[in-house]
Amino acid sequence: MVREQVTYEDGVVYEFTPDLEAIATVEPGTKLTIETQDSLNGTIHTEADVIESIPSQVNAATGPIAVEGAEPGDVLRVEIEEIRLTEEQGRVVTIGGFGLLDGDGGIEAPRTRLLSVEDDALAFGDLDIPVEPVIGTIGVATEADAYTTLVPHDHGGNLDTTDMTAGSVAYFPVFQEGGLLAMGDCKAAMADGEMCGTGAEIATEIDVTLEVVSAPEPGLERPLVETADAWKTIASAETLQEACRLANRDASELLAAEHGWDLTDAYMLSSLVGGLEISQVVDPLVTARNAVPKAYLEEPV
Amino acid sequence: MVREQVTYEDGVVYEFTPDLEAIATVEPGTKLTIETQDSLNGTIHTEADVIESIPSQVNAATGPIAVEGAEPGDVLRVEIEEIRLTEEQGRVVTIGGFGLLDGDGGIEAPRTRLLSVEDDALAFGDLDIPVEPVIGTIGVATEADAYTTLVPHDHGGNLDTTDMTAGSVAYFPVFQEGGLLAMGDCKAAMADGEMCGTGAEIATEIDVTLEVVSAPEPGLERPLVETADAWKTIASAETLQEACRLANRDASELLAAEHGWDLTDAYMLSSLVGGLEISQVVDPLVTARNAVPKAYLEEPV
Repeated sequence: MVREQVTYEDGVVYEFTPDLEAIATVEPGTKLTIETQDSLNGTIHTEADVIESIPSQVNAATGPIAVEGAEPGDVLRVEIEEIRLTEEQGRVVTIGGFGLLDGDGGIEAPRTRLLSVEDDALAFGDLDIPVEPVIGTIGVATEADAYTTLVPHDHGGNLDTTDMTAGSVAYFPVFQEGGLLAMGDCKAAMADGEMCGTGAEIATEIDVTLEVVSAPEPGLERPLVETADAWKTIASAETLQEACRLANRDASELLAAEHGWDLTDAYMLSSLVGGLEISQVVDPLVTARNAVPKAYLEEPV
Repeated sequence: MVREQVTYEDGVVYEFTPDLEAIATVEPGTKLTIETQDSLNGTIHTEADVIESIPSQVNAATGPIAVEGAEPGDVLRVEIEEIRLTEEQGRVVTIGGFGLLDGDGGIEAPRTRLLSVEDDALAFGDLDIPVEPVIGTIGVATEADAYTTLVPHDHGGNLDTTDMTAGSVAYFPVFQEGGLLAMGDCKAAMADGEMCGTGAEIATEIDVTLEVVSAPEPGLERPLVETADAWKTIASAETLQEACRLANRDASELLAAEHGWDLTDAYMLSSLVGGLEISQVVDPLVTARNAVPKAYLEEPV
């Protein structure tokens, strides 16, 4: 099968809305390569290039891509097969007014550090950091409101979740016909939390296969990701506590449905295995996830 | 060397204060076995035994144990060698007014589920959960204020951190002469987050070796734990965001000190490797940690 190619030159969005216009329409089962620009739109080439404040347009998301037959109530299944870096350096930056320690004594913003890529590692001073690419922004057309690509919500968007990596399968609720998937803002490496506001921002090519899961029961209200050994619900909210509550509620509902338990028993199990994880603590809404090992949750969608 | 034994019958505390009185005093290098009661003081024997609301005394912490020569500014090093369960069942409970989903539709509190232990696994319905014991409450005499054993803070206390397990080494700031260590509230298994408010609460025997690190630079303001592959700063605060901020600040300072970097470079590295983790989201203060893989931080204390 020929792998179709969609590049940021075909189109990007800076906002996820209910009425995105597809730049490509594909059949379920299609294998695609999606080219993404770095989150800062190729503006940072040297350490003298700094970002004084958040630009009005960041995290260009290549797309949207419609999948034929995807209807509200369905789930879009995105198998992430490979993420290849397409530049020889990444960049980590601090930006004024942004980041977990913003305003703390001793923290300088803006600052830019370039990280050259060699032999699958990033150079940071004399340390080598293994390349482990992550898709920072990935999502679908929203149900009702508009969210810029700086903001994560139930449609996905700027989830900054390390599990959005090769080998994982991401699932999104379909809110609009075709689903309308877009992605970008990749990192060559990123910590859980993305504390300084960025990972090693870099341009990539992403190989995915897109499928539609028809009206599963229970459905999804928010993104879900399948890793090698766990299912993880993902939720974004004003506070980490609320993001945790939503992710735990979603995980408990999936456990209850699969095992035929009531919600309280599912919640009690959720308190014993796997657990809550942090995606990012820096975006206008913050993101947490609830991992349930596959030993306890086999096939939630 | 004979291993000394300290049991909850020798003494427990329900509050960490600046002026704890030692029930035992040991030399640095002492190997101890510490016996702990379950967090609910042996009151739950059947599923009909439920906890309507948080009792005034929970998480009995066996101790305090003074270590000779430990002075304010030092660090108490607690190597956790083994945690043995001393009963054949654990219990997970929901309690009115407590837990991440407390008050949500479909969540019943109080409820008690007993989990029998067999072949290193806990039975939950027809699921087997591997026994992976965790010390829920572990800490030292405080600097100034008093915290009940339900509350974690800079002295440790009710940290509910899954890394407090066999094979880890926990480090606490010494605020008072002797350090005055106490621990209890063990779980046979617990999820990161401890969402329903408990893990599988159970009585144990804990083998530890206690040492004193004399006035390290930089010192510790809060607990730190060393696992097989990472160093993790641990912080508790009113909100998860603030706990994350403190843990990230502490991790950045340890990185800066070891590498001779400024704080901003350390913060940028912290945003690329390891990352933020959740300990618990249910106690009156919540707890997060910042993991830094040992490849980037070798010997912070």
